[in-house]
Amino acid sequence: MTAVAHEDVLAAAGRIGGHVLRTPVLEVAPGLTFKLELLQHSGSFKVRGAFNRMLAAGEMPPGGVVAASGGNHGLAVAHAARALGVRAEIFVPEVTSTVKVAGLRALGAHITQTGAVYAEAAEAAAKRAAETGALQVHAYDQPEVIAGQGTTGLELLEQTGGVDTVLVAVGGGGFAAGITVGTSAGGSGPRVVAVEPERIPTLNAALRAGEPVPVQVSGVGADALGATTIGGLAFEILSGPRVESVLVSDDAIVAARRTLWERHRLAAEHAGAAAYAALLSGVHRPEPGERVAVVVCGSNTDPATLTG
Amino acid sequence: MTAVAHEDVLAAAGRIGGHVLRTPVLEVAPGLTFKLELLQHSGSFKVRGAFNRMLAAGEMPPGGVVAASGGNHGLAVAHAARALGVRAEIFVPEVTSTVKVAGLRALGAHITQTGAVYAEAAEAAAKRAAETGALQVHAYDQPEVIAGQGTTGLELLEQTGGVDTVLVAVGGGGFAAGITVGTSAGGSGPRVVAVEPERIPTLNAALRAGEPVPVQVSGVGADALGATTIGGLAFEILSGPRVESVLVSDDAIVAARRTLWERHRLAAEHAGAAAYAALLSGVHRPEPGERVAVVVCGSNTDPATLTG
Repeated sequence: MTAVAHEDVLAAAGRIGGHVLRTPVLEVAPGLTFKLELLQHSGSFKVRGAFNRMLAAGEMPPGGVVAASGGNHGLAVAHAARALGVRAEIFVPEVTSTVKVAGLRALGAHITQTGAVYAEAAEAAAKRAAETGALQVHAYDQPEVIAGQGTTGLELLEQTGGVDTVLVAVGGGGFAAGITVGTSAGGSGPRVVAVEPERIPTLNAALRAGEPVPVQVSGVGADALGATTIGGLAFEILSGPRVESVLVSDDAIVAARRTLWERHRLAAEHAGAAAYAALLSGVHRPEPGERVAVVVCGSNTDPATLTG
Repeated sequence: MTAVAHEDVLAAAGRIGGHVLRTPVLEVAPGLTFKLELLQHSGSFKVRGAFNRMLAAGEMPPGGVVAASGGNHGLAVAHAARALGVRAEIFVPEVTSTVKVAGLRALGAHITQTGAVYAEAAEAAAKRAAETGALQVHAYDQPEVIAGQGTTGLELLEQTGGVDTVLVAVGGGGFAAGITVGTSAGGSGPRVVAVEPERIPTLNAALRAGEPVPVQVSGVGADALGATTIGGLAFEILSGPRVESVLVSDDAIVAARRTLWERHRLAAEHAGAAAYAALLSGVHRPEPGERVAVVVCGSNTDPATLTG
């Protein structure tokens, strides 16, 4: 048994149902379905885990919630906290752009800019939580977070009536792990193709090493898939037999993002286009008749760059 | 009886089903559903009518199809013609931007730039069709075109299980007329709120005059809702008891378009945001419990302008 069971995802769905969007699916060609999670509140799937973590905790501590992220996770925690009337403190590294800080502030979050890199901001967030009793919402390595993200998988199966393969992007692994559990039933389920940029191979490197190991982080996906190490809980799930790890080039991600706009009018961020890149570039080649779902998972991007 | 019956829409759905997307719906709040027709092939609902007109005609004449439009209708006819392996000639006025002409050429269409304004290009298109026997695909005033657009309404009812009100933008009126017929059953159906920019009130002016009359065309919706007169067939349908005509300001359209991006991550063109503008600006105020659907119908826009 892993740290997150299918029942945990079902429970998460019951908890967060009134707070997140049931994002639509779109069959763009026979046998090829997009799950449009980029249309989710706050622009990414991350609100699912954030809501589930907060709602599963019951009464909120006076200190509210803390999280570390200048990106999608920070936006999601700020969104969920505002919706639930909870104080949110978001720790971001000093390099975080003023635009992102302003976006978080607009959601009512208190911002602490500290540390040169993300890891230092994360450390400060953990310290604050320990000091004040605030609830820490991790970006990927907590069971409630993984279970929340997994509700995407539940919906996908309900909406499609079942698929053979799900392509999903991997950063810290919480989303892919959640979807793996969420799409399982009695241990079986679709194959999960876990897609990473070649320049951020956290899962791929961990599978080769047999355990989570830090990797170098660079490239177009770094702002949203920039974890240096796969999450421990996610690794436990993603090293299972249903999961296949593949890598895509930055060029393939850029091309997929452009195609999502030009052909499908979806404004995805690079990380949100990574899963589609595996299909479009031929890294994953479906068998005849294979029913494929691609999760398009984030839209926190400057739309001016979609055609650039 | 009007020129288009519910059975015609059902027949259209059977004809075009394999060629157009069943665009998803998204419940963005309790009782408020978006029909995401902006994700349709060619970036607008117009392909539904184009395919239905061509497929209903049976064998294509050697001259193929002709249409007049530098905008969504032109793109739709070019898309449908390419998909069906038919020659398409699109007439556009000389003022049409090189970007739009390039977009049409990229879809394989033959372009004839002629006339100072749209009406002159349309006249040339009609003349060419008469001379060569090519099939003319009108932007709105043909029964097959209206029936094709109406399949959007059929889907909406199936996908939502029924709504009380549908908000839809009006240019020449083919889309709103089709949706009115498509959502009817035995004469009853949801109320259709037909939304026009104040600066292009073709339906509103016609209802006041008791017949189609030309109006001045200006403002942000002009590139896609720029018909000077409501279509005769559409007027017949839209002057029925289920339809309410409302006007929205350009400011309301701009605000709705921005909200669609910022809150919902939908990249709509101005015309595609007009229906939502009626709701967001309070021109249409739903009763408690009213189930409202908003059709977001076009995305042929420069995404760089979404945040401007």
